[in-house]
Amino acid sequence: MSVETELPPAWKHPQVGPVDRSLEAALRQTVDGKAKPPGSLGRIEVLAVQLGLISHPAQPRIDRATLVVFAGDHGLNEDGVSRYPSAITAAMVQLFLSGRASANAFAKACGADIRVVDAGVAADLEPHPQLIQAKVRRGTANAAREPAMSPEQARQALAAGADIAIEILAGGTDVLCIGEMGIGNTASSALIMHRLTGIPLDHCIGEGAGHDIAGLARKRAVLQRAAARTPVADAFGVLVEFGGLEIAMMAGAIIGAASKCRPVVVDGFIATAAALVAIRLCPAARDYCIFAHRSAEQGHRLLLEALQAEPLLDLGLRLGEGTGALLAVPLLRAAARLVTDVANLADILPAGS
Amino acid sequence: MSVETELPPAWKHPQVGPVDRSLEAALRQTVDGKAKPPGSLGRIEVLAVQLGLISHPAQPRIDRATLVVFAGDHGLNEDGVSRYPSAITAAMVQLFLSGRASANAFAKACGADIRVVDAGVAADLEPHPQLIQAKVRRGTANAAREPAMSPEQARQALAAGADIAIEILAGGTDVLCIGEMGIGNTASSALIMHRLTGIPLDHCIGEGAGHDIAGLARKRAVLQRAAARTPVADAFGVLVEFGGLEIAMMAGAIIGAASKCRPVVVDGFIATAAALVAIRLCPAARDYCIFAHRSAEQGHRLLLEALQAEPLLDLGLRLGEGTGALLAVPLLRAAARLVTDVANLADILPAGS
Repeated sequence: MSVETELPPAWKHPQVGPVDRSLEAALRQTVDGKAKPPGSLGRIEVLAVQLGLISHPAQPRIDRATLVVFAGDHGLNEDGVSRYPSAITAAMVQLFLSGRASANAFAKACGADIRVVDAGVAADLEPHPQLIQAKVRRGTANAAREPAMSPEQARQALAAGADIAIEILAGGTDVLCIGEMGIGNTASSALIMHRLTGIPLDHCIGEGAGHDIAGLARKRAVLQRAAARTPVADAFGVLVEFGGLEIAMMAGAIIGAASKCRPVVVDGFIATAAALVAIRLCPAARDYCIFAHRSAEQGHRLLLEALQAEPLLDLGLRLGEGTGALLAVPLLRAAARLVTDVANLADILPAGS
Repeated sequence: MSVETELPPAWKHPQVGPVDRSLEAALRQTVDGKAKPPGSLGRIEVLAVQLGLISHPAQPRIDRATLVVFAGDHGLNEDGVSRYPSAITAAMVQLFLSGRASANAFAKACGADIRVVDAGVAADLEPHPQLIQAKVRRGTANAAREPAMSPEQARQALAAGADIAIEILAGGTDVLCIGEMGIGNTASSALIMHRLTGIPLDHCIGEGAGHDIAGLARKRAVLQRAAARTPVADAFGVLVEFGGLEIAMMAGAIIGAASKCRPVVVDGFIATAAALVAIRLCPAARDYCIFAHRSAEQGHRLLLEALQAEPLLDLGLRLGEGTGALLAVPLLRAAARLVTDVANLADILPAGS
């Protein structure tokens, strides 16, 4: 038994009700009664049932989708966990705001809006209509040497994430896609995954944005130092110790969306690490998570398995930015419309058959 | 050497130029130069290169998509190759036209138009703005006993398919999705696959719209009789012998789209059997085919392998109607926009870096 269970709750999250599993059989029957052979739409049918459980008692409706890209920097990168300098995070935020990043292109392709959140970029960012200013601090501290942030900063990031999600959903969005940008954030994610799942650290570490052999060895060494620094193994504690600010804010956003009974599409490795934190803080949030894709980042497959999550897509993506989550949005729309738009078999069969 | 190579061509198809593979390296370089780690968009990057090869010298553009659902009936079903009666084909056509089938729901979800083609439904269909009347005959003959159609009818179906594709593309569609509806058409597809690939017939036969053990045994027995009736093994010959009219028309449509240098999204098992016929009739058409998904229908995996095709999605679909092709359209849109909308890395890096 760990000590922190005796402490006051790390963050008082909004209340989340689990979906009512007793409705599952009836939803399954609704889908089976559509004008098609039972089961013939495979994963889309499973998704339709999940969306029905989430939206109950209303019918599922997935029209408007918004991608929220949470950006933050990582002190770990002082020790070179990424091959890219931290300045790239701010440059990419500017690119999102100028509409010329991959996430923008994919959002147009999939009919989604984009908002960008400064969770903790290590640079000052000019105001912009699509930018939500929620900076907790200019990047985390170097988790290889000290805690990435204070408990108060972790609480602030989680709460900001929940507030942002709730506000965007109140603006008329049906589904939230969770993505990120942060040089060094596969490193934080690997530490979080390792500590919360017990999977050996080496299996949690991948190439991130790309590494040669020496770079990957350096990343492993830095993360071993960070892991050796503290035995912390609770969801709030790993955020404090290992960061990042954007990961904490994503975890808060997932819980915020779940508190409003809305589906959340989780992007790749880092967003899934945030989902793991969210689910450990608030297990009922799991019911609202849709895992978009299996990333090429090495730890993602094991992390998804640990969450018993079967992702929708497997396209070898490893960019982040919410690109995989966006590609899953049309699948959600199709699943919702299967429930609401498709005739029942009974309605089209000739009388007496 | 087979005899038919000495005969006049079975069908004089529109001319198709293969894509210029010498451009591949330059396109790869364009994609690698985008503001993201090289390779980090996985299959979407591969797709972007294919779309670039297809659209050259223009930039790829995938906005407007049209699903064409080809419908036809199969005399094989007199012997019960499907658990459903052939009358379901006409009923489903009516459902497409009323906007309440799965294909309609998915088309809305993915932002695509739908047209339905009567290639050979065994019923009279009322005119409808979305229905293209191209009926060659009221269903095929029973291929277990006699050729499914005459050579002249096969030519007519192929030509109509090419004409329909060319006309729809001329109307402003950027990409054609090929889907079908036809009770019994996994049976015809299995025979086509078996004869054109040499894969044992048993491996080509699956459950189709669903079968119990007795039903599947009956389907196998009927198809063994059909296969034993004729040794034909050329692409035109298998259409004549085994049908179906909608498969022939889809093969023509694929070649028609390729002749206009436009991408074609191929749906599941039956559409892939049509693509196999198209590629055997006109090998250059292969370059324009994008295989949307791996169906749960048992022969599809082997058929895709025979075509060296790596599908984009694997969602356990086995409905047909073009539903899988539709779900792939946003991926094509994303791939095209990666080329046209995303900044180059060189443009965003600080000067001197």
